[in-house]
Amino acid sequence: VIRTRIMVINPNTTASMTVTVTEAASTVVRPGTALIPSTATSGPATVESNLEEALGAVAVADQVQAGEAAGIDGYVVACFGDTGVAAAREMASGPVVGMTEAALVTAAMLARYFAVVTLPSRTRHQSERVVRELGLDHRCRIRAVDVGVTEIATGAAPFLDAIEAEAHLAIDHDHAEAIILGCAGLAELTAPLTSSLGVPVVEGVAAAVAMVDGLLAQRLSTSRLSTYAPAE
Amino acid sequence: VIRTRIMVINPNTTASMTVTVTEAASTVVRPGTALIPSTATSGPATVESNLEEALGAVAVADQVQAGEAAGIDGYVVACFGDTGVAAAREMASGPVVGMTEAALVTAAMLARYFAVVTLPSRTRHQSERVVRELGLDHRCRIRAVDVGVTEIATGAAPFLDAIEAEAHLAIDHDHAEAIILGCAGLAELTAPLTSSLGVPVVEGVAAAVAMVDGLLAQRLSTSRLSTYAPAE
Amino acid sequence: VIRTRIMVINPNTTASMTVTVTEAASTVVRPGTALIPSTATSGPATVESNLEEALGAVAVADQVQAGEAAGIDGYVVACFGDTGVAAAREMASGPVVGMTEAALVTAAMLARYFAVVTLPSRTRHQSERVVRELGLDHRCRIRAVDVGVTEIATGAAPFLDAIEAEAHLAIDHDHAEAIILGCAGLAELTAPLTSSLGVPVVEGVAAAVAMVDGLLAQRLSTSRLSTYAPAE
Amino acid sequence: VIRTRIMVINPNTTASMTVTVTEAASTVVRPGTALIPSTATSGPATVESNLEEALGAVAVADQVQAGEAAGIDGYVVACFGDTGVAAAREMASGPVVGMTEAALVTAAMLARYFAVVTLPSRTRHQSERVVRELGLDHRCRIRAVDVGVTEIATGAAPFLDAIEAEAHLAIDHDHAEAIILGCAGLAELTAPLTSSLGVPVVEGVAAAVAMVDGLLAQRLSTSRLSTYAPAE
Amino acid sequence: VIRTRIMVINPNTTASMTVTVTEAASTVVRPGTALIPSTATSGPATVESNLEEALGAVAVADQVQAGEAAGIDGYVVACFGDTGVAAAREMASGPVVGMTEAALVTAAMLARYFAVVTLPSRTRHQSERVVRELGLDHRCRIRAVDVGVTEIATGAAPFLDAIEAEAHLAIDHDHAEAIILGCAGLAELTAPLTSSLGVPVVEGVAAAVAMVDGLLAQRLSTSRLSTYAPAE
Amino acid sequence: VIRTRIMVINPNTTASMTVTVTEAASTVVRPGTALIPSTATSGPATVESNLEEALGAVAVADQVQAGEAAGIDGYVVACFGDTGVAAAREMASGPVVGMTEAALVTAAMLARYFAVVTLPSRTRHQSERVVRELGLDHRCRIRAVDVGVTEIATGAAPFLDAIEAEAHLAIDHDHAEAIILGCAGLAELTAPLTSSLGVPVVEGVAAAVAMVDGLLAQRLSTSRLSTYAPAE
Repeated sequence: VIRTRIMVINPNTTASMTVTVTEAASTVVRPGTALIPSTATSGPATVESNLEEALGAVAVADQVQAGEAAGIDGYVVACFGDTGVAAAREMASGPVVGMTEAALVTAAMLARYFAVVTLPSRTRHQSERVVRELGLDHRCRIRAVDVGVTEIATGAAPFLDAIEAEAHLAIDHDHAEAIILGCAGLAELTAPLTSSLGVPVVEGVAAAVAMVDGLLAQRLSTSRLSTYAPAE
Repeated sequence: VIRTRIMVINPNTTASMTVTVTEAASTVVRPGTALIPSTATSGPATVESNLEEALGAVAVADQVQAGEAAGIDGYVVACFGDTGVAAAREMASGPVVGMTEAALVTAAMLARYFAVVTLPSRTRHQSERVVRELGLDHRCRIRAVDVGVTEIATGAAPFLDAIEAEAHLAIDHDHAEAIILGCAGLAELTAPLTSSLGVPVVEGVAAAVAMVDGLLAQRLSTSRLSTYAPAE
Repeated sequence: VIRTRIMVINPNTTASMTVTVTEAASTVVRPGTALIPSTATSGPATVESNLEEALGAVAVADQVQAGEAAGIDGYVVACFGDTGVAAAREMASGPVVGMTEAALVTAAMLARYFAVVTLPSRTRHQSERVVRELGLDHRCRIRAVDVGVTEIATGAAPFLDAIEAEAHLAIDHDHAEAIILGCAGLAELTAPLTSSLGVPVVEGVAAAVAMVDGLLAQRLSTSRLSTYAPAE
Repeated sequence: VIRTRIMVINPNTTASMTVTVTEAASTVVRPGTALIPSTATSGPATVESNLEEALGAVAVADQVQAGEAAGIDGYVVACFGDTGVAAAREMASGPVVGMTEAALVTAAMLARYFAVVTLPSRTRHQSERVVRELGLDHRCRIRAVDVGVTEIATGAAPFLDAIEAEAHLAIDHDHAEAIILGCAGLAELTAPLTSSLGVPVVEGVAAAVAMVDGLLAQRLSTSRLSTYAPAE
Repeated sequence: VIRTRIMVINPNTTASMTVTVTEAASTVVRPGTALIPSTATSGPATVESNLEEALGAVAVADQVQAGEAAGIDGYVVACFGDTGVAAAREMASGPVVGMTEAALVTAAMLARYFAVVTLPSRTRHQSERVVRELGLDHRCRIRAVDVGVTEIATGAAPFLDAIEAEAHLAIDHDHAEAIILGCAGLAELTAPLTSSLGVPVVEGVAAAVAMVDGLLAQRLSTSRLSTYAPAE
Repeated sequence: VIRTRIMVINPNTTASMTVTVTEAASTVVRPGTALIPSTATSGPATVESNLEEALGAVAVADQVQAGEAAGIDGYVVACFGDTGVAAAREMASGPVVGMTEAALVTAAMLARYFAVVTLPSRTRHQSERVVRELGLDHRCRIRAVDVGVTEIATGAAPFLDAIEAEAHLAIDHDHAEAIILGCAGLAELTAPLTSSLGVPVVEGVAAAVAMVDGLLAQRLSTSRLSTYAPAE
């Protein structure tokens, strides 16, 4: 019996990515919790540029509005960079977690030093924004491969070697002891990279789903006091 | 003869605020530079909440798109918190400066310690986000009065005393030596507060206009290399 | 059917505290996960001083050793300050989470600013050590009431008013939007404080249990590569 | 008609450098603003060592004293490292901006990440001092070529290749998206480097001149309240 | 028999202050080490403003030059804010320690949190500059009383109560566990404040003398490699 | 005549290391000060892992307890990472200094940038913990060679080349101007590395001994107010 529903929000319109990441995260939830995949109905096909982040944030807000109408219990924003999470927090009655922040704090429980491997290079500051918002810049390095998100939208497997090579650089040169996959579209690489790298590989959507599930179990939700008070 | 046009973008739909801040900044530009006020045609009436920031960022992008079509030379985003500035930078061929970042670096040239007085309280993190993006948190404190932006949309004069009282607290308790007005709607208070406080009072739109004008004079514009490369 | 066992380690010898916190966290775990309370068999009755932290760390290590022999799947260290967590991580095959780090990252998902209310005053640096290890000092303030841990060992209820008063100061003066209870012995105050304060109140043991449970669901455990490699 | 005069202060005695940088910046000022070049009459021929910085600061103070007597409106200190700026601020009735701080905040408006290319290597900490005073160390890397300032006093052109090579390293390895020329003597390289590098190249004296001009337009000057109160 | 001579440099011309601080520190040195008091022969009577700091730095350099001619083994700069220390390091063959940096690291060995009580208020940034150069801002607060250095030049006793009151505020509100006297002229208050406050009171000249003496015993002196290489 | 006794505490059971470091530091103390070597009677043979740090901290506490009974005046903890220093501070009536913190602040008086060369790689975070506790991460880099402490217990000479090579990397790539030896067992390499590297080489035990000796000369000891109050 489903008692709890967590919406997995994809801020872009590429539904195949929503399906992939939701499936990847489906083993994480408790019995009684269902993951509800949700894809943007308008906006960019992928979120890479700053404009796409702005459009993506509005797409997140739209989906949360629909989710609230449907009685969703909690939300995961499945886009590296966590666009729209702040707006989602003030709109949703239940907890909201971004895949980036979830991945970072999860890695922090597993390793003293870790690294994000993201794509494409231009999005480095989007990762760093979340890293610094949490204050983890003394423990986390950011590396990027210059592959566009659109290139992996139909499957990340062709880029396994490139991601793995960059992860090895993080391990060898940045002292990384765990690797965070810096794009929802890389979820399918979690298992092969875990095998080949020999260190924990954190997939942010799964990490965020686990965290929302845990917040719900603790009956915790976003503070309404100030920053995330509902808009008037 | 107008050779240079700087668009002053208001991310919200309250045109009176656009007029006020543009007028306040009009004395700052060089001969030959014109300020073009621009107001959002849709979206929130004021930007206070996180959702309004998300909607405001898209409104900024829309106005930059129109500005590019009209051959605008540079842009100022006139909303404390600098929503939409990153997207604007990647869309515009000329320089883009947010009123918050401009106010902060301007104050840093005038005083060792300074403070933002913003409103309402819930927007504290929006100021802090820009402060930390620049790294000025060791020199800048943020104070807020709990007045909504809508309340000052028809004139900030009724709140002069409240702003002044908070500024005095910043001077007395935070060692502030200059005050930044933390809302475009407060521009009209610059002169009276400068008189009464006896320290420099920085109005961010004027500061940003001066900065864009200076960047244009140096023939400098946003780097297209990576973070602000045009969206594909 | 119990498939997963998480040991809740109390580094001090006060078994009543172990029982209280384990009970408080018992509603958080998934079906099939059991919490196994464990209390130090020797060492200090409470962990307040630096010497007690040193002794407590060894007590944690002893309990993990026993836990490994018993096939425990994951561990929570139930002592604010997270003494012994680093040693536990290198000894345990499964994940280990301290109540302090768990509470901090949990609060960070619920509020932009938050505060720890801990006790007694002399332990301030023990909280700050974890706050800074995570890098959250720009978002988290630490407040303390000068009550000894021994005084609350037989029940924290008499100190509800003192804790609540300090939490109100954090809300009013530090802009805190959520409160972290800075001692395992305060778990019983979670419900009454949640009611009276009107902001999320995070209890670290429950937060840590949820996090370990989530890590196990993701099949993630401590990186063995370097910092937490097994001792030779 | 000249209404405003900005003094460009060279803390060293090499008048050719004063001329070069003032000319380079002359296109930046508004109609009605004149740049007044000023060279130290005693002290070191170049400012590279810490002793030379100490002597240079006094030379700056001497020139400001003369400038005040002559009714100068604002000042630029044209020496990377901004020696003497604090003293100048408390002596001058008008605004004072150092070329380093101006270059840094200008670059911050153009790029998320940027780099200083300075010389010689021993002056790294002089750049870093200003970077950290502004708090931009998370966005700015410092690189140096080991060429003495005296070597470029008669023209920087022979070192174009060396500077360009170091700038390319900053772009390729430090993710720099804009380059700051870390010596007033490099001003003549601004144009060729802008062409060859394809990213914004910021020359600090021009940036500082623009900033002082803008402060004057805003009728802003140094706070007299505390740090920069006149000496008794 | 005197084998080692440490010069105590006063950057200002008030010889009485030199005598007082040298006497206060005289009990700290080893047998065979002599303290050589040295007073500026020109420049300001006290160092409070930024201009006075600039002049004081040159006065320090002059005294080091004389000291090198006289075969001095090590140097202490006895002015809170450590003006001239960088220049002194590159000029001296032996080690150089400023009273501020020495006081800060000494307090850090005695207490987790501590505070500077300095004077007058306008010099706050001079203390903070050294605090941040060492990185101790997370452990050290700065407080000031608004008394001029000239007022204490003839004896600090009349200001004992004011200093003590501010120190109590640091203890009560900033969690300070040790107090640093933020002016060489306060040395005579060390004993009475130690008695009345009940926490360690660190006098920077004595701390610096002990540190130079210890560096000499370790046969350590300033690195000549880069930052402090001799000026050419 | 011995008037002052400083105990040099080795948290591990390898007495040969205690002898070596105590001898190396013996030339640093004043006449009348004796160094009393003390070796753990139980616990790990070397301190490398986190568990060994936990056990080492208790071994430090045991030795301080014995030292207090014997009237020891001050203590040095001779283990890189400073395990047990906090507990020692609250137990000892006299001052306590760790070799890591002493080495770091000593290097900070000699060089603007410096590096630790430690071993083995897994202990990187133990060095970084102390670096960050002092706030020196902007000036200090950490490098490691992957040699176990047990390998150097019988003499570090075979690893001179490896240490020297890593130190050269720090000088060439990290701008280090001084080198800190990151293990008590490396003390015998101080002289040869000083010769070959041409920069100051800081040995932490000697640095800590000098510092404790200096604190005693200043009649300063640990603050009993809060963090290091005696355990009840």
